[in-house]
Amino acid sequence: MQRLADAGQMDEIERVVRAQGRAARQTAAVLALADTARKDRALRAMAASLRENLATILAANRRDEDAASGKDMSGAMRDRLHLDADRIEAMARGLEAIAALPDPIGRTLASWARPNGLKIARVSVPLGVIGIIYESRPNVTADAGGLCLKSGNAALLRGGSESAQSSQAILDCLQAGLRVAGLPEAAIQSLPAGDRRAVGVMLGMAEEIDLIIPRGGRGLIERVMAESRIPVLKHLDGICHTYVDGAADPAMARRIVLNAKMRRTGVCGATETLLLDQKALGFAGAIVADLIAAGCVVRGDTMAQMLDPRIMAASPADWDTEYLDAIISVAVVDGVEGAIAHINCHGSHHTEAIVTEDAAAAARFLAAIDAGIVMHNASTQFADGAEFGMGAEIGISTGKLHARGPVGAEQLTSFKYIVHGNGQVRP
Amino acid sequence: MQRLADAGQMDEIERVVRAQGRAARQTAAVLALADTARKDRALRAMAASLRENLATILAANRRDEDAASGKDMSGAMRDRLHLDADRIEAMARGLEAIAALPDPIGRTLASWARPNGLKIARVSVPLGVIGIIYESRPNVTADAGGLCLKSGNAALLRGGSESAQSSQAILDCLQAGLRVAGLPEAAIQSLPAGDRRAVGVMLGMAEEIDLIIPRGGRGLIERVMAESRIPVLKHLDGICHTYVDGAADPAMARRIVLNAKMRRTGVCGATETLLLDQKALGFAGAIVADLIAAGCVVRGDTMAQMLDPRIMAASPADWDTEYLDAIISVAVVDGVEGAIAHINCHGSHHTEAIVTEDAAAAARFLAAIDAGIVMHNASTQFADGAEFGMGAEIGISTGKLHARGPVGAEQLTSFKYIVHGNGQVRP
Repeated sequence: MQRLADAGQMDEIERVVRAQGRAARQTAAVLALADTARKDRALRAMAASLRENLATILAANRRDEDAASGKDMSGAMRDRLHLDADRIEAMARGLEAIAALPDPIGRTLASWARPNGLKIARVSVPLGVIGIIYESRPNVTADAGGLCLKSGNAALLRGGSESAQSSQAILDCLQAGLRVAGLPEAAIQSLPAGDRRAVGVMLGMAEEIDLIIPRGGRGLIERVMAESRIPVLKHLDGICHTYVDGAADPAMARRIVLNAKMRRTGVCGATETLLLDQKALGFAGAIVADLIAAGCVVRGDTMAQMLDPRIMAASPADWDTEYLDAIISVAVVDGVEGAIAHINCHGSHHTEAIVTEDAAAAARFLAAIDAGIVMHNASTQFADGAEFGMGAEIGISTGKLHARGPVGAEQLTSFKYIVHGNGQVRP
Repeated sequence: MQRLADAGQMDEIERVVRAQGRAARQTAAVLALADTARKDRALRAMAASLRENLATILAANRRDEDAASGKDMSGAMRDRLHLDADRIEAMARGLEAIAALPDPIGRTLASWARPNGLKIARVSVPLGVIGIIYESRPNVTADAGGLCLKSGNAALLRGGSESAQSSQAILDCLQAGLRVAGLPEAAIQSLPAGDRRAVGVMLGMAEEIDLIIPRGGRGLIERVMAESRIPVLKHLDGICHTYVDGAADPAMARRIVLNAKMRRTGVCGATETLLLDQKALGFAGAIVADLIAAGCVVRGDTMAQMLDPRIMAASPADWDTEYLDAIISVAVVDGVEGAIAHINCHGSHHTEAIVTEDAAAAARFLAAIDAGIVMHNASTQFADGAEFGMGAEIGISTGKLHARGPVGAEQLTSFKYIVHGNGQVRP
């Protein structure tokens, strides 16, 4: 009987999710042709609705927090789940910022004429339907929904179950904004929460969904990559390095390393490993002392440990670890070539920085490092769509296909070739 | 014993293919930094080597043809396997044409400055290692190897077993060209032929290979999509439509439809379904008569059948069939909206054309059709990288991610963000 009941429940979940997928596919055709003013009007109306419904959203969030109070959740997870008036205002401003961005759809990316008179243009179009799977961060509901609408895509959202009530209250505001602008509510839908099987159904819907974006920890992303029959835009790890060259300005190096590691330790652009040129050891002690003074645990290789008695020994696993915490590993390398070899072995193709006054060393580093973002004399914490001027981001892609680095509205597009002739036939 | 022997053989194949993958990954780092002149020198030396080794290649092709003579192969397959002096000269010219293209690597795709002084540039880089799986078409060895080299990618080629000797003789010439330019031979490698398990190993090597491009029939592509742990750039079907609007120039419509269907029936850009506006029925009889006179079988819906007694009844499956043959299905639709509805239901997102003198109808069609290429008053047979002015192509992508439409050297690239600062830290 239990099995039969489960089978019935699965049928029901599958039926619901498939119907949502079909509705999203139909809506995508409408959104692809929606004009800029209408999309931006919806985004601004969403922001207004969030502000009007502040009390409702906070009450829903309180219910989520009460339900989560007995669960085994880390402090970071509880912090992400929490909403207050400032965070809701930040979501509203985020939607207004997306409205203010140029429309990524309908841009002529290139155009040319052929000797036979054919005129060819490559024009940006939406991807279609985007499935976004995330953990219990209710603000992602607004960010992802807004970015998908701006880029003319229908969104199928699947947030974590702990934030289900908060996300639903936010989604209600987004759909109110869609109605104000005369756009279909199915432009942004939320999958049934609280049943992991809904994700499995979603990942098999290759006819209805064009792209899956998982946003969360490694476990979530690996599950999605293993199960998905749909292309995945993934952000796997952010094992970012800052390499301090012997020709670095010592004061700049101190400032950059301290910021790159300690400004916020939980973000993917935080530096996890400090690479020190052998020739930088004369001034590197101060860099380490700054980190320790700021509360950072420092783990070093044998040579690095000579800089300060408080540096503990690093294990081999340290070089491949994304701490997301106040911990840093430090290795001494032989110049820029040593840094390149270390990073191309242990890096995660996310963000890598060099600090140096030597233009040739910088050029060599920036060319040879295989990463989405390479930086010269700047903090790796700038790895962020907003800091790049791209408006909001839905994540940072560590893959090389389609989008690399910060994924904003412009990266959620495809293109088509439009060919105008006057009767040409091919010889 | 048999099982043990098989296991040992599998170990050996896996060992060989994995070693090739690692060599490709290492070589990719060299190719990414190779300058334009060196790559182009290699391409021209490859072309010269093909010409010098004409007799050797033809002899190898004869051995392939002899071995295939007893096998069950279609005439089209035998034709694709066959090489002669003209076809080898065409390969050599193709490589020279690739050499003459602008370098797709190192281009600044966009650049801007931020208020804090950070300078950001998006610069094109190679994808890394590309695996290409194709059937017994030896010319693909030269095309794919040349396009990958131009775009700074290492190539792992796996051609059909029937063309193994021909492909090896061509690969020898490509590697000779690499040596002339001082580039590593591992830039273009060929997997062991004649054992399908090598493909399985290849499709699991996500660490070593960045992209898989299958080039062949639907069976091959579906196997690759089902098994691959690596992103796939796919060309599934080419069910292309030509819609003749009531406002079409009748003479132009006749010329375009005849060419779109009959110029070459086996190419993916050939029109498979003709859609006739109800208002075009007055002049559509001549279009059908042209097709029949050229040897085309015509299958129509009830209304289309009234145009000519020689039109047979179409079955529902006809609307979803890529004939790749001298067969066409004909449906009568209610204006441009009817054409859009039919195509977005039955099309394969490849190439779709409208013939009309009505600019508004054309604009509506070009905007609403979800396909990689949309055409106005031109033959769908122009769906081809060379006809687009992109040089050689490795196929036409029917997916929306990364590359859509013809895939040439430019489409085999990714990008990185290069950020220059002068000590910026994030507030």
